[in-house]
Amino acid sequence: MTDSIAANPDRLLPADPGTRQIARELLADVEHLPILSPHGHVPADVIADDTPFPDPTALIVSPDHYVTRLIHASGIELSDLRVGGTADVDSRTAWRRFAEAWPLFDGTASGYWLRSSFEHVFGLPSDLVDNLGADNADTVYEAISAKLAEPGFRPRQLFTDFGIEVLATTDDPLDSLEAHARIAADESFAGRVLPTFRPDPYINLAHAEWSQRVDRITAEAGDGVAGYAGYLRGLENRRRYFVQHGAVSADHGVRTPLTLKLGRAEAEALFEKARRGEATAADRDAFEAHMMYEMARMSVEDGLVMTIHPGSFRNHHRPTFEKYGADTGHDIPFAIDYTAGIRALLEDFGTAKDFHLVLFTLDETVFSRELAPLAGFYPSVYVGAPWWFLDAPDAMMRFRSAVTETTGFTRTSGFIDDTRAFCSIPARHDASRRVDASFLARLVAEHRVTENRAHEIIVDLVDGSPRRVFKL
Amino acid sequence: MTDSIAANPDRLLPADPGTRQIARELLADVEHLPILSPHGHVPADVIADDTPFPDPTALIVSPDHYVTRLIHASGIELSDLRVGGTADVDSRTAWRRFAEAWPLFDGTASGYWLRSSFEHVFGLPSDLVDNLGADNADTVYEAISAKLAEPGFRPRQLFTDFGIEVLATTDDPLDSLEAHARIAADESFAGRVLPTFRPDPYINLAHAEWSQRVDRITAEAGDGVAGYAGYLRGLENRRRYFVQHGAVSADHGVRTPLTLKLGRAEAEALFEKARRGEATAADRDAFEAHMMYEMARMSVEDGLVMTIHPGSFRNHHRPTFEKYGADTGHDIPFAIDYTAGIRALLEDFGTAKDFHLVLFTLDETVFSRELAPLAGFYPSVYVGAPWWFLDAPDAMMRFRSAVTETTGFTRTSGFIDDTRAFCSIPARHDASRRVDASFLARLVAEHRVTENRAHEIIVDLVDGSPRRVFKL
Amino acid sequence: MTDSIAANPDRLLPADPGTRQIARELLADVEHLPILSPHGHVPADVIADDTPFPDPTALIVSPDHYVTRLIHASGIELSDLRVGGTADVDSRTAWRRFAEAWPLFDGTASGYWLRSSFEHVFGLPSDLVDNLGADNADTVYEAISAKLAEPGFRPRQLFTDFGIEVLATTDDPLDSLEAHARIAADESFAGRVLPTFRPDPYINLAHAEWSQRVDRITAEAGDGVAGYAGYLRGLENRRRYFVQHGAVSADHGVRTPLTLKLGRAEAEALFEKARRGEATAADRDAFEAHMMYEMARMSVEDGLVMTIHPGSFRNHHRPTFEKYGADTGHDIPFAIDYTAGIRALLEDFGTAKDFHLVLFTLDETVFSRELAPLAGFYPSVYVGAPWWFLDAPDAMMRFRSAVTETTGFTRTSGFIDDTRAFCSIPARHDASRRVDASFLARLVAEHRVTENRAHEIIVDLVDGSPRRVFKL
Repeated sequence: MTDSIAANPDRLLPADPGTRQIARELLADVEHLPILSPHGHVPADVIADDTPFPDPTALIVSPDHYVTRLIHASGIELSDLRVGGTADVDSRTAWRRFAEAWPLFDGTASGYWLRSSFEHVFGLPSDLVDNLGADNADTVYEAISAKLAEPGFRPRQLFTDFGIEVLATTDDPLDSLEAHARIAADESFAGRVLPTFRPDPYINLAHAEWSQRVDRITAEAGDGVAGYAGYLRGLENRRRYFVQHGAVSADHGVRTPLTLKLGRAEAEALFEKARRGEATAADRDAFEAHMMYEMARMSVEDGLVMTIHPGSFRNHHRPTFEKYGADTGHDIPFAIDYTAGIRALLEDFGTAKDFHLVLFTLDETVFSRELAPLAGFYPSVYVGAPWWFLDAPDAMMRFRSAVTETTGFTRTSGFIDDTRAFCSIPARHDASRRVDASFLARLVAEHRVTENRAHEIIVDLVDGSPRRVFKL
Repeated sequence: MTDSIAANPDRLLPADPGTRQIARELLADVEHLPILSPHGHVPADVIADDTPFPDPTALIVSPDHYVTRLIHASGIELSDLRVGGTADVDSRTAWRRFAEAWPLFDGTASGYWLRSSFEHVFGLPSDLVDNLGADNADTVYEAISAKLAEPGFRPRQLFTDFGIEVLATTDDPLDSLEAHARIAADESFAGRVLPTFRPDPYINLAHAEWSQRVDRITAEAGDGVAGYAGYLRGLENRRRYFVQHGAVSADHGVRTPLTLKLGRAEAEALFEKARRGEATAADRDAFEAHMMYEMARMSVEDGLVMTIHPGSFRNHHRPTFEKYGADTGHDIPFAIDYTAGIRALLEDFGTAKDFHLVLFTLDETVFSRELAPLAGFYPSVYVGAPWWFLDAPDAMMRFRSAVTETTGFTRTSGFIDDTRAFCSIPARHDASRRVDASFLARLVAEHRVTENRAHEIIVDLVDGSPRRVFKL
Repeated sequence: MTDSIAANPDRLLPADPGTRQIARELLADVEHLPILSPHGHVPADVIADDTPFPDPTALIVSPDHYVTRLIHASGIELSDLRVGGTADVDSRTAWRRFAEAWPLFDGTASGYWLRSSFEHVFGLPSDLVDNLGADNADTVYEAISAKLAEPGFRPRQLFTDFGIEVLATTDDPLDSLEAHARIAADESFAGRVLPTFRPDPYINLAHAEWSQRVDRITAEAGDGVAGYAGYLRGLENRRRYFVQHGAVSADHGVRTPLTLKLGRAEAEALFEKARRGEATAADRDAFEAHMMYEMARMSVEDGLVMTIHPGSFRNHHRPTFEKYGADTGHDIPFAIDYTAGIRALLEDFGTAKDFHLVLFTLDETVFSRELAPLAGFYPSVYVGAPWWFLDAPDAMMRFRSAVTETTGFTRTSGFIDDTRAFCSIPARHDASRRVDASFLARLVAEHRVTENRAHEIIVDLVDGSPRRVFKL
């Protein structure tokens, strides 16, 4: 027996019948609009090479730390899920562990996306999905494997079938962007795949390879200039290279939202101290804060939208990091302060022409307290959509409720899926659209927004905002 | 085509039909009760002089930083809205900018208040309001201008028509209160207009004129005593003067909720250091914290209700502050700590007889965590109603949900409109009443409060609480 | 006239008729399941001795700081409620104060529990309860007194009638546990009453009796070893004694969630410094943080579930503390940081086999930001259910909404009532079950969880989780 979730046309819509009816009508306006994904982590060569996806485990389980973390919490070793390149068990066995853990995902965002992709992408019957477990793990594994072997399940065909118009990747500043170039050059493929400049390891002094990266970027793009000046020149040149290859944004995963304008001499001294391996934790924070200021300056010059993703304590569990590497499920958010932190940057660039700064948070408390007021004054600032732990239905609804009354509908970034999990992209965008329809439907039902305007607003949220904010 | 919001009798009420019916009945109890406004920013001479309001832009746009900030965020210069005394464009042109920006306000609190006052105060047809924009900007400008020329649109007539019983202003300690005296002496006018003692620039060492203000208050009210003692005497005397002129409260806009009991010698030394222009940022915080303690002591003595409004980073964007002055839309909230901060004050005055201390916040997280527990123990403490960015329907609902379970309905301050925008006062109080009716209706529908008691409670929230808390 | 709350079968269920129907069906699955109470404050000798409860005031008012705090906030002295052993008035007079204060409790969690126990435990008619006040205070006092004199109102009979299967007490490490032993030995009584090891005064250097307690535990259980080593030995031995007497958990009321792994020499030096009476506030925090690490180590060894209750500023109002003692209504929460704080402990024990660590909070912001991500990765970590100010319907609903999308339903602790108020236990568990049913009903109505699974999940939340998490 089953009562399918993924197939239900009213999924995620509010229970009140009157409000639901309004939500349905709003959803109808946007349900079939193309997907704009201006920030994510699908590798470009997946699209460029159009190689078939590997087995179900390698596609759906092992690389997705949203999925493996919950199974790990239930007591399963990450190596039993083939995380981080481990292969203690074969794919089919790892898949069985996943299937057995399926009930853990009830009520979670990951569970919703998985369920949706199982039904909508892989066409699994809902009773099979509802009852995924030890008994039918192999059946499902084989069903998905069979699909993955079909030509219609190659990345490019899925890209088209998913209705993706734009997909941004996240790339190292020294990436050749060869895959992006190949995609752009291929006239048979209409999708836009844009690189994103992500210089974290070149900026974060705590990164194990920081000094090495500085060597490389200076050597490869520093125009022969040495030291701090060459380093800045290298970053500037590589940003320009990204712009030439279609990049629209530069993304920054920083510890906190702190920004700082150091004098040239002071910045240079800090840089040299770090190069000598003598930087302290305080130096690290100051340099990162200063480099955020420099990144904003460069964005003002070269037009790349600047996005900031702060507030995650990376690799919280050292033993797991040492065994399995980064991005293995134990990055834990903490409280942040945007108001004081972002000020140095905004004082100089907050009203700069055509500068776009998208501020993300994992600390929900800053939505109403800091981000909505900031975006409601500074022309450069946009509130980043709920991200990571927060891009789930209730959290997205709390976000709209927290920011809209202060900053309206025009100052938010539009949804970003931020995902490595290619097959989950349609489900994520669909969920966001349903939540926005539900939120707007309540405002209509409570006579706070007119129905006419709600129909215009939802199209703007889904289509207008990302195009405008990310300069697509 | 239109579906009017402001005219809809069910606006802001919950969508669920059963709950809405209960809310309607609760609302009926209070919809027509007089307005008590114990904290706001309408200047007293507006009422005393009863001068006609100026043009629509000068009344509705330029002075309201809630309105100009959102338009600024869309890329319009504040000077194009005639903010801060600038006059780069004429009023009609500035109004056109506002009209073009009208869709920005959808879903915002300001949009709701503007819409309500356009329809209810100025009698504009709702289809005009719904479709305000470049095309009809002039029509609306003229319609409002024509109304403003009518005798019925003078401040005193509106005061009466709005059903205002008490309106508190916010005043400088050295204000002569002449306007208040004139209003009180005028037997033809029934409204009460009460001054509020607001000594921020006399207390905040960072204020540009602090030392000058100290000179003046000491000279004018220090009873000939010099130094710190004369300064305190001056403050005490001016508070008494305010009491004599009908003041019921003293209001404090401070950086943080920190309070501190310094010894006399220590306080005096800090004062003298600041007078010599040598105070540090830490001194500033310590002195402000100490003066909050002193202000509480004085309130215990003279009976003025003490209200504290902390947690706003004032004038966040220095270039805008330098060009347009304070209160121009870039005061940004930050996280605060009431629990440790307010302790020094409460240890000595928390149970003082007839002392009333109303604690406001822009940081929603303290509602459930700190303010409800504090107000649920200390007889002196009341939770200040949602304020500034938070006096919007969803935020007000979150407030009731956050505090009621811990501290009930008797420990909150009653709504304050805190506004300069005179014509928005009825809409703001109406919105608050609708939210309270909606919150209570849900508790009735969920069988958590009896319907009988809900009818009593809503009257107490709207009428009893502000009278009791603000000693009206 | 009345509209009973406590008697209404739909109390606390959502207003939307469709969702309510689903909630009713979910509630039916668990409404009559036994009560598991793995953390609370009922003294064991109440059950062991089965002595009749004293008068209504001594049972319901004086010892319950949830109740007396709100009455105190209204201006009544705590001595008028016979708090802290004071007896300025007789019980009947104190009860009258309580009855007069009854309307203060509308909308509060305490009001709901009191009302439920008045109707369901003491069988008072709902119109009497609705209208409790000066007029009928004596009538109610006598009615409850009469009930208390009946044999059916002895603690053990109520224990059985309430359907309690397990009740954990909170005990001093040196408690003989004689009462627990007597209960366990009595074959005529089926209920399980388990001790809980709560070593706060032995760990918190700021506790007035810390050094004395160290002397005692070292003398009584230190195996003749002196100093820090004997102190640790004493704690280890007493934990073992508790395990032998049925304890399943060790509970820690700490200032903050900080943990710290000090080297042996450093810890010993700190201990000796404190023994000499020279410890600073920073030492106090460091020692407590280190001892949390040690307690985790011991839990890994002896299997006691470790529970942490941080973030309450104890005895905020010194004068009240000096007059009435601790736990008199002025413990005020503040913001905490679990992410950085708990890391030292989790690095070493976060994946330890069979180690269970339940993290509680009074700061709601950490639910979505920190606790759900932590419990969603670490096999040892469980999110503690809403506690103290937060175990009320709206707060419990916010909790589920905050954590479920990130960590699902399997990583939360199950409800704890944490109460001294024996007669409120059924009402508290009933309220929790109703909220969980309501939350799940919404997910079903929004097609986010299947109805089949919701029926399984609610049974697991009410029955499975506490058994599993607390190793019952």
